[in-house]
Amino acid sequence: MARAAADPEVIRDKLAAIVGDRRVSLADTDLDAYSRDMWPRLLIGLRAGEKPAHRPQVVVWPESAREVAAIIKTANSLGVPVVPYGAGSGVCGGAVPLGGGITVDTKRMDRLVNVRREDMLCHVEAGKNGERFERELFRRGFTFGHFPSSIYCSTVGGWLATRAAGQMSTKYGKVEDRVFGVTFVTGDGEVIKTDGLARAGRGPAWTPLLLGSEGTLGIVTSARLRVAPAPELRVFRGFDMDDVQSGIEAIRRVMQRGLKPAVVRLYDERDTFINSMSILKSEPREASSEDRERFGPVPAPGDGALPEITMSAGAEAPRSTSLVRFAGRLVSNKRSQRAIHNLGREAMAAALARPRLVNAALDKIAGRAFGRGCRMIIGLEGSRIRTEVEARLTFGEIERAGGRDLGEEPGLEWYRHRYAVSYQMSKVFRTGAFVDTMEVASTWERLPALYRAVKAAIARHAFVMAHFSHAYSDGCSIYFTFIGHAPSTRESERLYDAIWRDGLDATTRVGGTISHHHGIGLLKSAYMTAEHREAMTLLFALKASMDPANIMNPGKLGLPFAGARL
Amino acid sequence: MARAAADPEVIRDKLAAIVGDRRVSLADTDLDAYSRDMWPRLLIGLRAGEKPAHRPQVVVWPESAREVAAIIKTANSLGVPVVPYGAGSGVCGGAVPLGGGITVDTKRMDRLVNVRREDMLCHVEAGKNGERFERELFRRGFTFGHFPSSIYCSTVGGWLATRAAGQMSTKYGKVEDRVFGVTFVTGDGEVIKTDGLARAGRGPAWTPLLLGSEGTLGIVTSARLRVAPAPELRVFRGFDMDDVQSGIEAIRRVMQRGLKPAVVRLYDERDTFINSMSILKSEPREASSEDRERFGPVPAPGDGALPEITMSAGAEAPRSTSLVRFAGRLVSNKRSQRAIHNLGREAMAAALARPRLVNAALDKIAGRAFGRGCRMIIGLEGSRIRTEVEARLTFGEIERAGGRDLGEEPGLEWYRHRYAVSYQMSKVFRTGAFVDTMEVASTWERLPALYRAVKAAIARHAFVMAHFSHAYSDGCSIYFTFIGHAPSTRESERLYDAIWRDGLDATTRVGGTISHHHGIGLLKSAYMTAEHREAMTLLFALKASMDPANIMNPGKLGLPFAGARL
Repeated sequence: MARAAADPEVIRDKLAAIVGDRRVSLADTDLDAYSRDMWPRLLIGLRAGEKPAHRPQVVVWPESAREVAAIIKTANSLGVPVVPYGAGSGVCGGAVPLGGGITVDTKRMDRLVNVRREDMLCHVEAGKNGERFERELFRRGFTFGHFPSSIYCSTVGGWLATRAAGQMSTKYGKVEDRVFGVTFVTGDGEVIKTDGLARAGRGPAWTPLLLGSEGTLGIVTSARLRVAPAPELRVFRGFDMDDVQSGIEAIRRVMQRGLKPAVVRLYDERDTFINSMSILKSEPREASSEDRERFGPVPAPGDGALPEITMSAGAEAPRSTSLVRFAGRLVSNKRSQRAIHNLGREAMAAALARPRLVNAALDKIAGRAFGRGCRMIIGLEGSRIRTEVEARLTFGEIERAGGRDLGEEPGLEWYRHRYAVSYQMSKVFRTGAFVDTMEVASTWERLPALYRAVKAAIARHAFVMAHFSHAYSDGCSIYFTFIGHAPSTRESERLYDAIWRDGLDATTRVGGTISHHHGIGLLKSAYMTAEHREAMTLLFALKASMDPANIMNPGKLGLPFAGARL
Repeated sequence: MARAAADPEVIRDKLAAIVGDRRVSLADTDLDAYSRDMWPRLLIGLRAGEKPAHRPQVVVWPESAREVAAIIKTANSLGVPVVPYGAGSGVCGGAVPLGGGITVDTKRMDRLVNVRREDMLCHVEAGKNGERFERELFRRGFTFGHFPSSIYCSTVGGWLATRAAGQMSTKYGKVEDRVFGVTFVTGDGEVIKTDGLARAGRGPAWTPLLLGSEGTLGIVTSARLRVAPAPELRVFRGFDMDDVQSGIEAIRRVMQRGLKPAVVRLYDERDTFINSMSILKSEPREASSEDRERFGPVPAPGDGALPEITMSAGAEAPRSTSLVRFAGRLVSNKRSQRAIHNLGREAMAAALARPRLVNAALDKIAGRAFGRGCRMIIGLEGSRIRTEVEARLTFGEIERAGGRDLGEEPGLEWYRHRYAVSYQMSKVFRTGAFVDTMEVASTWERLPALYRAVKAAIARHAFVMAHFSHAYSDGCSIYFTFIGHAPSTRESERLYDAIWRDGLDATTRVGGTISHHHGIGLLKSAYMTAEHREAMTLLFALKASMDPANIMNPGKLGLPFAGARL
């Protein structure tokens, strides 16, 4: 186990010999910045002004796979850890440098090298910013189809390292479904390329082995990715469903008929209520016609300039779609800011100290205000004729499952603010509470049990609500959002840990998977054995062979780590 | 390296202690039968009456993963090799017991354990016969969508071990696209289950690692597979295309629009000609109305008894679709059988001794008889409304690429005889020639170069023709069929080896993949390094960790083997 025994100056000098003086740093501000990602647990201590428990010794910015290989070989020779870092939007602590060492920021490897129209493949470097990537593709008439809410603050490499999913994954697939091959530098500094038709019959497939490895086996430096034609048409529709169960049934039927809506979101009763509330409370929206022009059905290519469909943040701050937005909005209102800082803080603390009561009360209020029921949003996009047919069949299937058509507005409303959640977390934290999301998944048969079990597990500790999204023929993901509060930093951390422990225990007990697309990092490391069982031996074997000196991102993904965890 | 030093009686007794006396055999007939699969190279010596070069010492028929684990542990303790065996339809020598040892026949593990309607998943044991599997699913209203020409003589486990493709893979995917999880006994006798949503974000995915491992890492004992609703409608259409290039372009456009025809077959000029000839020469077909009833558009479920759409062999022997059928038909004609055995033998020998001449002559004859042009067959199936729309869009795309509509008959003709190729090889061999197929693949951009390079490489040695099938948004597979002839057994083997060497060298040079769905086995073992390059170290590492004593299917998949290869 590498333990950062080397002198930082020595490391710096050796790295400077590879990348030059200007792309290595020992500066305190850099070491602080690279001490964490967006894992909410770390924000609890940060809010209290605590120093990060783990910082890298050195930060380096390579510009090629060759430089990354040389850096990793140097780290091997010095026996210091290496932690890859994209844009730092991870929510599981995957980029925390537990053992110190070298943090490798990939963001200077940011070229879209080419787009091969004939093969509908592109070659992009791992540090490419998500939103810029999508915008550059769109200008050429393509889309990657990957739209995480973090698209403005995440990289292609980060997506690949965590098997990420975007909001339109039900049509385009998760990121791993769109990879033709990666260039990967292993933990002993070898450069591997895994390109090839995924469907080749020449032994095991390597790409699925490296995706999701979260820096523990090596670093993705570039990738050949499948692109799709930019959509000619986008169609949204909202539905009211009687309850969660009938909503799930509707989605299952749609998916098992082979239909491929891009967006499928079913909000449970609480999430539906909070959504409605935050819409009521929001500042006046732009004029409807303007909305349409900016966000509505996409004109066919050739109709004029391509609309910037990946842009959502304009003059107004983007709005979230959920509880985070609701809470965030409360504190972003200028008139109420000071009041909340004093009074709201205490009110929220008082309320969240009794989470069962809050959960139950909200169910009651929601029931009175809106009656029972769940909101569902469906979005389809693609070529005009196919999208029209697919929309008709999809909407028909949902109506047969009891869905009441609400027109396109609920869908457009969601679409306009689809990236907002990533910008609202800090506002909730300023109230003294914490917020996080837990994305689990299972087959359809187990899905209702998974929903009940995890909701009940979290509800003992915090306010919780959920929506269902990312659907497949064999199952679906559930996205829980929770807000908790405790009197002190240490108690908040304990509460946070208890929520995750009970939530993931419930998930494993019911036979769900502990992560759909946020990854494992430090947060879920302890649950990897329950998830993979006997197959964990495969991970240990891989780790031993690809990172023999055990320097790559130590302590993540359930791999053994001798040092202190947090 | 395990080298079969143990006494067969000792092995037998130890295995009998696990499975009982009746499921272990030392019988000569069994050892002969399990000495080979359907690798054409082995048939050359077999025809000459030669004894197999490699036989297992013992054959065993386990009935559960537990028994397989115990057998593998026994093999480890004795230091003898283990070779898994399905139905023996492999065409690359993957089941040849190079180092002797224990051949494990999986065919007694043949239960369809369950079909979970809600999740559209089934649980099936690895030794299940392909056609029975499909028939049992169809009775319950589902299809697995996997229809290799070997469906009557292959097993689910064999499909998984080789990453097989069926004739409808363009819609349903290759077998690896439909796996939810496998139960796998590793080379040290551990039982691993890899089940889970493929899209889970909890580290590397194991299933793609075990699929295609061809018995070198362990044995698949059962699998959870995705099923699809049985089709309500099936539509066929034939087209004449100007040439191969316009045919390729048509398929590419269809795939890149996101359309999913089930069957896409583009025959090159020679294959088109041979097909036409063998149709002209065929015995009278069944009455057309009868055909429709048995093979035509599938009635919607509920219209009555489900048609046995997986059945094609009736009173008449199934016909092949290609050169194999042509040659096979020549010798299966009763009146000409004796004449061919004497005269035809010599004529074929004389002709095939000048392969360049034969290839050129046939091009000329084909050009005169039919003009230039290539036949294309498209088939679509699924729910009624979707299939209708998809067929309209697909046919429109092909017509825009210059396709001339020939109606449904060419497609129906192919469909009726789609499994015939597996039954015609032996007839060709009886003429003294040999026949084989080479299935390579590449991205679209490289596909024309791949076609030209491999065709030219083989044409120096043998008569060769090709069709394009199994298409994706990023590329397509090419299926070459060749017939060669040499005066003696040894010379035939040398010619056979030269064809493969030159064909695969050309493939690698152009950047194609050496196998789309037949696997590697012994045949392509030497080309694995050119194919995987640096990533071969991953395979070595996996092998070392999952099969530490190196007893699993020695000498396959490009893994090191100290003994004699053939």
